[in-house]
Amino acid sequence: MGDEKLLEGIRVLDLTSVVVGPATTLRLVDLGATVIKVETPEGDVMRSLGGPSNTGHFSGKFLHFNRGKRFIALDLKTPAGLEAMRKLLGTCDVFVSNIRPESLARLGLDAESCRARQPALIHCNITGFGPGGPYRGLPAYDTVIQGASGITGLTLKRDGAPNFVPLLIGDHTVAEITAGHICAALVRRLRTGQGATLEIPMLETMAAYNLEEHLGPASFCPPLGKPGDTRVLDPHHRPVATRDGWITLTANTDRQAAAFLRTIGRHDLLEDPRFRTVADRFRNAKDWYGLRVDALRGQDTAYWLKALAEADVPAMPCYTLEQVEADPHLKAVGLLVQEEHPQEGTIKTIRPTALIDGKNYDPGPPAKPIGADTETVLAEAGLSAAEIQAALGAGTARTAKAGAQS
Amino acid sequence: MGDEKLLEGIRVLDLTSVVVGPATTLRLVDLGATVIKVETPEGDVMRSLGGPSNTGHFSGKFLHFNRGKRFIALDLKTPAGLEAMRKLLGTCDVFVSNIRPESLARLGLDAESCRARQPALIHCNITGFGPGGPYRGLPAYDTVIQGASGITGLTLKRDGAPNFVPLLIGDHTVAEITAGHICAALVRRLRTGQGATLEIPMLETMAAYNLEEHLGPASFCPPLGKPGDTRVLDPHHRPVATRDGWITLTANTDRQAAAFLRTIGRHDLLEDPRFRTVADRFRNAKDWYGLRVDALRGQDTAYWLKALAEADVPAMPCYTLEQVEADPHLKAVGLLVQEEHPQEGTIKTIRPTALIDGKNYDPGPPAKPIGADTETVLAEAGLSAAEIQAALGAGTARTAKAGAQS
Repeated sequence: MGDEKLLEGIRVLDLTSVVVGPATTLRLVDLGATVIKVETPEGDVMRSLGGPSNTGHFSGKFLHFNRGKRFIALDLKTPAGLEAMRKLLGTCDVFVSNIRPESLARLGLDAESCRARQPALIHCNITGFGPGGPYRGLPAYDTVIQGASGITGLTLKRDGAPNFVPLLIGDHTVAEITAGHICAALVRRLRTGQGATLEIPMLETMAAYNLEEHLGPASFCPPLGKPGDTRVLDPHHRPVATRDGWITLTANTDRQAAAFLRTIGRHDLLEDPRFRTVADRFRNAKDWYGLRVDALRGQDTAYWLKALAEADVPAMPCYTLEQVEADPHLKAVGLLVQEEHPQEGTIKTIRPTALIDGKNYDPGPPAKPIGADTETVLAEAGLSAAEIQAALGAGTARTAKAGAQS
Repeated sequence: MGDEKLLEGIRVLDLTSVVVGPATTLRLVDLGATVIKVETPEGDVMRSLGGPSNTGHFSGKFLHFNRGKRFIALDLKTPAGLEAMRKLLGTCDVFVSNIRPESLARLGLDAESCRARQPALIHCNITGFGPGGPYRGLPAYDTVIQGASGITGLTLKRDGAPNFVPLLIGDHTVAEITAGHICAALVRRLRTGQGATLEIPMLETMAAYNLEEHLGPASFCPPLGKPGDTRVLDPHHRPVATRDGWITLTANTDRQAAAFLRTIGRHDLLEDPRFRTVADRFRNAKDWYGLRVDALRGQDTAYWLKALAEADVPAMPCYTLEQVEADPHLKAVGLLVQEEHPQEGTIKTIRPTALIDGKNYDPGPPAKPIGADTETVLAEAGLSAAEIQAALGAGTARTAKAGAQS
């Protein structure tokens, strides 16, 4: 007892590409599931569009979102490819796709068709826009979701012009929510034997995400004020420049506020009526935040981090991407591990971060070439050696070239 | 068959407050679990600090992150309060907290102590910083996590100064990941009978989130370039001003790019070598993005949305927070529902967005006063009426005042 991974033995058929779907199934990999990634014979566009790689087939983004998976290539436009897909699906507990509903139906891979053959299947589709509204079936991009969910509007309120969160926040958030729903559906299946049909619509989900945090005073009828958390959206609430960089610090409580004033040598302000209580500082946010700007620029980041730590005021450096991995905590816990990729040479892998029964699960093998596991997986699905060879010969399935395999 | 919710019958004891923990257990509520929120007799600080409310006890943020839960108030500083907590824990499948490890141990509610009494328990703690690194035990704020995970550094790269994502991205993301891990642990428990000890460290998790997207060319040894997805971080990749607002549009493929040029009447650029392929447009991103800025300011948002939809170029308005709920799709699907809150009057509730077996689960009852369910829940946990009254009398437990109850 104790060594079985949380999702050990769960088989997931993964017909997703780009980011939101692969991030969903990456989470299932991290929890211990077996994920079989189905690519077209051309492969996930993220292999090449996700940035440079030594071979041109494994961008950094592709590597990170697809480690630990098995790789099969099938041409679903051919009847034999679809038939192989269906046989494979019969060996799986979960099917995940991020395909527009009408395309999924055209392939006969919609929930109704799949669950007619396999009622206990957990069928999950990630869509841009749910049923019942005018955007149903429109393509979704992270940018479009950020605009319509009001996320770019937050920057408009704070900075005077809308801008994107510089991360694929919609893709990444919806991926985690989808993985959670799949696990919850597995819970019900284990208790009742029943499968499930899941759809996670991105716009609705990201609008809910944004409004949970920011609807605030406008949650009441009549409204008690405008929406928007004024502390988060205050233009003065931002990282502070030091002599050689930037830090972020939080001095919210009265104790932290007093400790901060002592640290910057402003004992004269300890009794200032503008800064005495949380409410006082909130009312005088501009002056309060202004203090730190004036005070911190005189010394280096290292000086302030040490002084603030001694005063027990939470503070951290604002790292550039280049600096993150050198952070002493992240280095000590070994967030990044170097490993040998058979095609790409030495790469940096980001390992799972949760502690499960006291340890981090291992990250699994690195992402493989298109079709690397095609033959093995099709054999597991019950295709004979002759059927597999026929499919490969007809271009229905693809296997990695011998020389490119690990 | 078909009517049981995914997590129906799962009981969760929720010793969390503020955002990351309550967002975790909100997701479990949405999936059908019974969540019992334990507050101190003073209540979750988010009740008042999360913004205004009619009574001062139900900020919008508190309402949204705590709907559908049951509410019990216990003073864990008293032996009788702790004893009631332990009895209650014995009736639950899952325990979630966002308390620093040493404080949890002081209460005897650390995983080792709890699982010694109850081996099948799923014990989950959300921490700022995992074991094995120098930040272990430090307090975590979303700002500090954004700084040290390199998220503020993305804005530094794009805009020349670091800034926060204007959402509690660390809290919200870690919440979804935590909920997923809890569900996965329930899967293993149903298959093996085994409980689990889970810890989700925020810094590690958000650094992984950021690096998965942005480590890119620096994922290789030697590096193939600097980290940072240059498309996402291009300063010209941003929403575009129209005559009366802002829109976001994505014209990535050659077909979309040509359709966009026709829509803005620039047929003369269809064969321009700067814009012919994805690679051309990427190399000439400044010119390419500049085109839209010049073109779109001449007409209203409504004009462009219609024209771009006809050209099959993905585009959406950039809503302000005030505008989101009036979006025709979100209105049609009924994302926000009005309901009567016993203390606050009419409120807007954000309902679950996933479609499970074809429908949205209902949002559950609105958040209740501190201790509203104390007596019922303690009776369920096996305390006698006399024990409950004694606890209430001694201030160990608290019940909502009769007049304030629903």
